[in-house]
Amino acid sequence: MLSPRLERLVQLLVIYSVVMLIVEIDWTSAEHSHAAPPFFLWSERLVALFFTFEMVLRWQSLPHATFTEKLRTTFGRPEGWFDVLAILPFWLGFFLPAEALSVVRTTRVFRLAKLYRYSPTAHAIVAALWRAREKIRVVGVMVLMTVLFGSLVMYELERKAQPEAFGSVADSAWWCVVTVTTVGYGDVSPVTPLGKVVAAFLMPFVLAVMGAFIGIVGGAFQDVADEPE
Amino acid sequence: MLSPRLERLVQLLVIYSVVMLIVEIDWTSAEHSHAAPPFFLWSERLVALFFTFEMVLRWQSLPHATFTEKLRTTFGRPEGWFDVLAILPFWLGFFLPAEALSVVRTTRVFRLAKLYRYSPTAHAIVAALWRAREKIRVVGVMVLMTVLFGSLVMYELERKAQPEAFGSVADSAWWCVVTVTTVGYGDVSPVTPLGKVVAAFLMPFVLAVMGAFIGIVGGAFQDVADEPE
Amino acid sequence: MLSPRLERLVQLLVIYSVVMLIVEIDWTSAEHSHAAPPFFLWSERLVALFFTFEMVLRWQSLPHATFTEKLRTTFGRPEGWFDVLAILPFWLGFFLPAEALSVVRTTRVFRLAKLYRYSPTAHAIVAALWRAREKIRVVGVMVLMTVLFGSLVMYELERKAQPEAFGSVADSAWWCVVTVTTVGYGDVSPVTPLGKVVAAFLMPFVLAVMGAFIGIVGGAFQDVADEPE
Amino acid sequence: MLSPRLERLVQLLVIYSVVMLIVEIDWTSAEHSHAAPPFFLWSERLVALFFTFEMVLRWQSLPHATFTEKLRTTFGRPEGWFDVLAILPFWLGFFLPAEALSVVRTTRVFRLAKLYRYSPTAHAIVAALWRAREKIRVVGVMVLMTVLFGSLVMYELERKAQPEAFGSVADSAWWCVVTVTTVGYGDVSPVTPLGKVVAAFLMPFVLAVMGAFIGIVGGAFQDVADEPE
Repeated sequence: MLSPRLERLVQLLVIYSVVMLIVEIDWTSAEHSHAAPPFFLWSERLVALFFTFEMVLRWQSLPHATFTEKLRTTFGRPEGWFDVLAILPFWLGFFLPAEALSVVRTTRVFRLAKLYRYSPTAHAIVAALWRAREKIRVVGVMVLMTVLFGSLVMYELERKAQPEAFGSVADSAWWCVVTVTTVGYGDVSPVTPLGKVVAAFLMPFVLAVMGAFIGIVGGAFQDVADEPE
Repeated sequence: MLSPRLERLVQLLVIYSVVMLIVEIDWTSAEHSHAAPPFFLWSERLVALFFTFEMVLRWQSLPHATFTEKLRTTFGRPEGWFDVLAILPFWLGFFLPAEALSVVRTTRVFRLAKLYRYSPTAHAIVAALWRAREKIRVVGVMVLMTVLFGSLVMYELERKAQPEAFGSVADSAWWCVVTVTTVGYGDVSPVTPLGKVVAAFLMPFVLAVMGAFIGIVGGAFQDVADEPE
Repeated sequence: MLSPRLERLVQLLVIYSVVMLIVEIDWTSAEHSHAAPPFFLWSERLVALFFTFEMVLRWQSLPHATFTEKLRTTFGRPEGWFDVLAILPFWLGFFLPAEALSVVRTTRVFRLAKLYRYSPTAHAIVAALWRAREKIRVVGVMVLMTVLFGSLVMYELERKAQPEAFGSVADSAWWCVVTVTTVGYGDVSPVTPLGKVVAAFLMPFVLAVMGAFIGIVGGAFQDVADEPE
Repeated sequence: MLSPRLERLVQLLVIYSVVMLIVEIDWTSAEHSHAAPPFFLWSERLVALFFTFEMVLRWQSLPHATFTEKLRTTFGRPEGWFDVLAILPFWLGFFLPAEALSVVRTTRVFRLAKLYRYSPTAHAIVAALWRAREKIRVVGVMVLMTVLFGSLVMYELERKAQPEAFGSVADSAWWCVVTVTTVGYGDVSPVTPLGKVVAAFLMPFVLAVMGAFIGIVGGAFQDVADEPE
């Protein structure tokens, strides 16, 4: 653990860093950080340098003697991985071509994961999802099977009528996911009479499977919200 | 408290005022109240005058001696603020340019808040939401984080393919909200293969977070409905 | 009560009547029953005659002496009204202009209500909804208020940008209902930045109110399904 | 029961067979297996031959003497039907015209049903759905009635205004299903004022019926997920 004031500074810099990311994208419309006003570039460099410095400090504050023990403690918890994830894209940026800089900039959003260290709620959610992992796996397999089945059937029924929307099993799976979550954008929907009939009878059942999945994952979140009351 | 008959009149005038608002807009198609038939303008003036008079009456009926005490009692409850909100736009209208008069007219809908005083159900809902405030805050932060994360990732994946739909993080956030609530208008949806794959895997989880939020807020409403049974 | 065989015949004729309605519409594409092949017209006439005859039989089988008592018993239960609803459009058809004959034909679907008499489930649902009437009323008022509020606010924000979609409060209310039920056809959706921001913050809350309403009504149906287990 | 190693091989071949189906469709874009590279055709022939051989082995391993008893045991469980379903399309393919070969290929997805034999979860789901069959039937009838009613009413209200979308009761039923599941593609939606008003009042109630149906089916899936915890 670092000093409370330093931890506070880390939290503030994470939020500052993500806010600056959105401001840089939406306000300057720059393609990547080198194309934006220099303020954003230097702000980012200072933040990344600070997070690197923070990692070094954390490493030295570990109460272990050997390098291997320190390594195991650091990467034995998600926090260690999140710290690396927060600065790796920045340092990789120096070795990447200019086209990749835009992706590098967006990866800054993963810095939000650093807040995980400070949030008892986030810890509780991960624990709740972990407890429900067997349920999630079982219903997750059901969802996958249903989506796979629905995709292949609808692919066969619709591909002749609308090759641009149901032209491959992957396209058909996209229809299936959009339908099963009841989002229903309308970019893809069955048009043949048989496709509509089959879809109409499939829907209530696949919705039920997906509903069970969302119920289980959402239940884990709700359990966490219930606890502090 | 005013006399029961006066309170009854206030309730009726609130409903009358909102009904007249809709009639004025949909039936006369007038841009603002001065462009509508004079009946609507004078009807509104009388109602606003009555509500101002009502505020004065309430003020005088307060069992306090000093001005400060009366002020504290009035604005210590939401009812006091709702009374001001019901007439403030009307009086401000005299000092505003003609372009703003349409907005002034629409703010009449806030007069519905005056009914709060008379509805034990509304009081119970506010109390239930207040009791659930910690839960709502916790899951609300989760929703915000998920929407923020989803927006930035999809912005990066889709902005090249459809700059008019995912041209900024704000646009991307609109997609995210529409998807997460399962409304899915279809005005914005991913078109790139990678965008679709990422969206397909993000959806079930963000839906679960949103489902937990809606479950908690909806639960507060349902608790209230359960009580009078 | 009529004899069991006659009751059975009534049930079969209700289903036959509705099936013939769909066949007539979708297979013959006739505008109304006089334009369809004579078989459909005569089939309908016989069915309507039988249902009229059935009403007379039920009336005579009532164990009352006076006309007023018979009237009170008949229309004191929904079944009496459903019997009238099943034949009234047919008899009215003789006095209506040809343009109305298509509507007359469609009203045959109300004959499904005659099945109410034979279904303990339907009786249980009506009883469950009746028990939940206070809840439904309370949350129904919330839904109405929220939809009214959302409609007027979005009308003001969007009418300038898209007068064809948000041209009146009624149009705006259609958007609100489609959004609140999460159906989201996409025929109407906010396009202005402010409209999107306000919609994004309104959605989770109005969805919660609607979710509570659907939860209460759906709960009544589910209670009924739980009982026979 | 076959030997554990053979059972393992069957499971692997099912997954291999479905994966190859998707690869063949999306990667080779071949219309049917004879148009694809020969590898896919021969791979399929070997898999189908193996599954036929597997059926023979299972038949011989049955501890019965007479043919009739073996037949009864085999087809007394879903597994027997799934085994036939897995190879029937392949053998039928030799007698079908070339146009049908594409459908034959897609039916390979039904081989997933062979995994049913090995999954205790799948057995538990079928058992849970079987236990809830009475509930599902009751609410299923409600859903059918509501969809039927909504379809006929909306057909009458909308067919004049948009004959291409509400041109038949079947088209109208498609609108009803898409709305009731809250998917809302937007390919069909009411446009007449009366149609919108009726739809707005129908929606919350039909959504509640559908919600009850999804809740019951989804509950059966969730019960299964709860058990192994």
